[in-house]
Amino acid sequence: MRSADLIRAVRDKQAILPAELAAFVQGIARGDVPDYQASAFLMAVFFNGLSDELTAAMTLAMRDSGRVIDLTSVPGLKVDKHSTGGVGDKISLPLAPLVAACGVPVPMVSGRGLGHTGGTLDKLESIPGFRVDLSLTRFVELVQTLGLCLIGQTADLAPADKKLYALRDVTSTVESIPLITSSILSKKLAEGIDALVLDVKVGRGAFMKTEEHARALAQSLVRVGTQAGVKMRALITDMDQPLGKTIGNSLEVRESIEILRGHGPEDTTELTMALGAEMLILGGVAKDSIEARAQLGNAMRSGAGLAKFRAIIEAQHGDPTVVDHPEKLPSTEHKSAVLAKMAGVITDIDPYVLGTSAMRLGAGRAKAEDRVDHAVGIVLVKKVGDIVERGEPMAYVHHRGGGIIERELKTIEAGMVIGASAKAARPLVVDVISG
Amino acid sequence: MRSADLIRAVRDKQAILPAELAAFVQGIARGDVPDYQASAFLMAVFFNGLSDELTAAMTLAMRDSGRVIDLTSVPGLKVDKHSTGGVGDKISLPLAPLVAACGVPVPMVSGRGLGHTGGTLDKLESIPGFRVDLSLTRFVELVQTLGLCLIGQTADLAPADKKLYALRDVTSTVESIPLITSSILSKKLAEGIDALVLDVKVGRGAFMKTEEHARALAQSLVRVGTQAGVKMRALITDMDQPLGKTIGNSLEVRESIEILRGHGPEDTTELTMALGAEMLILGGVAKDSIEARAQLGNAMRSGAGLAKFRAIIEAQHGDPTVVDHPEKLPSTEHKSAVLAKMAGVITDIDPYVLGTSAMRLGAGRAKAEDRVDHAVGIVLVKKVGDIVERGEPMAYVHHRGGGIIERELKTIEAGMVIGASAKAARPLVVDVISG
Repeated sequence: MRSADLIRAVRDKQAILPAELAAFVQGIARGDVPDYQASAFLMAVFFNGLSDELTAAMTLAMRDSGRVIDLTSVPGLKVDKHSTGGVGDKISLPLAPLVAACGVPVPMVSGRGLGHTGGTLDKLESIPGFRVDLSLTRFVELVQTLGLCLIGQTADLAPADKKLYALRDVTSTVESIPLITSSILSKKLAEGIDALVLDVKVGRGAFMKTEEHARALAQSLVRVGTQAGVKMRALITDMDQPLGKTIGNSLEVRESIEILRGHGPEDTTELTMALGAEMLILGGVAKDSIEARAQLGNAMRSGAGLAKFRAIIEAQHGDPTVVDHPEKLPSTEHKSAVLAKMAGVITDIDPYVLGTSAMRLGAGRAKAEDRVDHAVGIVLVKKVGDIVERGEPMAYVHHRGGGIIERELKTIEAGMVIGASAKAARPLVVDVISG
Repeated sequence: MRSADLIRAVRDKQAILPAELAAFVQGIARGDVPDYQASAFLMAVFFNGLSDELTAAMTLAMRDSGRVIDLTSVPGLKVDKHSTGGVGDKISLPLAPLVAACGVPVPMVSGRGLGHTGGTLDKLESIPGFRVDLSLTRFVELVQTLGLCLIGQTADLAPADKKLYALRDVTSTVESIPLITSSILSKKLAEGIDALVLDVKVGRGAFMKTEEHARALAQSLVRVGTQAGVKMRALITDMDQPLGKTIGNSLEVRESIEILRGHGPEDTTELTMALGAEMLILGGVAKDSIEARAQLGNAMRSGAGLAKFRAIIEAQHGDPTVVDHPEKLPSTEHKSAVLAKMAGVITDIDPYVLGTSAMRLGAGRAKAEDRVDHAVGIVLVKKVGDIVERGEPMAYVHHRGGGIIERELKTIEAGMVIGASAKAARPLVVDVISG
């Protein structure tokens, strides 16, 4: 099928065969199909969508554009988690060791932060020495020996996604459910996993602003992933306030250690348990949520999760003593309090406002090529629903000094609203979507 | 405005300023905006359309991407005609000299044939020596001195259209009314005209298959052209059978000479008069259709139109004696009759079937780079509504011999349907659209 005819068929909602779409996507990956045809196709998909069957074909073609990791040498079902991104979302850090400690291998390939959202790789790299650029051979070895490895995207995993994502970014075709679905799943499926748990975030700090959109994406991911032969589960979770009490890389590592110790904030601990339970069930080591949560709780109390975290830090060239001495993590000389202007109840903390403020302080990136300052960030003393007295600190900003800080303190203060009473918040886990 | 933001605005039907769109189109023309962004924009326009105001801005930006011919040195209103293309459509050849003979300067930049449709340039080039590649300086001189010149598109007239059209062709974004409108008008406006008469064809041999689509295109062309400062008139005309009695380049020149002599077929003569009348009215030399048709009739009877045709042939390096000795035009040794299988009435002549057959015989091009045989073609003895006896010739095919001819004779025979009675045909001029 000529590329122009395939574009026309998508444009006119005419039937095409999965193999025809796969050949087109392979052509894009190889560079045989020029970018201008790829982008016309992307815009046609933006308007007309793509069936699950075709999205699965596209996903598999994107996955197969590069290396697909073979983890059949590792016994048991390999399970990963993917989050669509939020503010203060450090869940992968406590989750992966905890799940691995319960006997489910976790081969995790993560991304970096951009805009108001953070990224797992940046958080891990705030641990002195930690390397996320291991070879895929070493990746497989560590999943075999430790049941866990945490690396970054490499050039040979789903390169078609990298190319298509770059095109989508400059052609305003990012916000398309089948395109998001194929982008996420092509990378994850290249990990050689058997099952995937998704954390689809909804709210002002998320990519999906409404529950309707988040549910549509979660359903698409679960349906297409299932078609592609992977066991799927998606949690739709709240992102209308920052997750946990920290925003910023080394601060979030500290909170992750607290979660593993069983002393973490209520919401991040609960989300770790909820996602972990699904991973244990899909991984076949627990029959239901009660059993899974019991195992996760044991791994916290026994220190097995923390031990696994130390082990993986050491294996990935980091300093494992930070787990017991978090003061070794990068920190700033300057700390400024954000004080409550009046007494009352915290009625709202805007995750987008705080996320972009943390980004400007240096914790994140405005552009992909920006460098990150691992030490800076925001520590929330108060969360939505908490009572504050006038003049009491609501948050602390860890910063490097300089002119920027006064404006950011005001921005953060404005992002934390004090009122008479907080309205009923959305539950942390809004919904669970199964295959 | 960033290109991605402009694409997003078109995608989401958000308002953009004409100047913003103009800057984007200028960027495409200069190569500052990459093709992949241009094609995403084109697909977004395909789905969401573009307001008349924005289409006019796009048209003017495309016009101004190259040279705009200055014809202010030529007194009077300069008027051109454009046809959206059909089978047997040689109207420009008799029309331009006839209108020029009536005192309205006609600066005409034409195109070549492709697929089942012919092109004015190919027809002119069947006149021995005729050159359509004159310089723009010479073009202006001839409009000044003869009131007429007939050349081909040059690289410096509306180059943005050439670039965009090539992109539309390979991204399946051709069939979009605002994109067709800006493509046609940008080239025509670069001629430096004051008024434009459009022949928007409708039917199986036309780009627009239905009256609804043809009317929408005609209205868009008239509205946008008017916004761009040009006086506009559009005729919607029938293309459900070939125009006139000839298909093929030198054969159509012969018919054009017959029309100028006042002995042409009824339909091509009438269409020449109808389009010519609008050109004379817009050109300000006739106050209404009756007056205009009287002047055109005089120019035919007096031989002034024919004299103008001789003069422009000579000025463009052709042999003007072909006008009085058409046997000097290229011709074929072989002529084969298409015979009626039964007695009856011609109920249908499919212009697409005959147009593609003529193309395969060599009169046209399957691909833009193909060469044309000026001598070959089809002469229709019968038109829709004519009575035929069994075994009577319905058409003659002028060809070069070879294996192809048997199949083409069958194809043409199948394209000419004989029945008991012809159904009422669509009128030749279906509608007139004014500003």
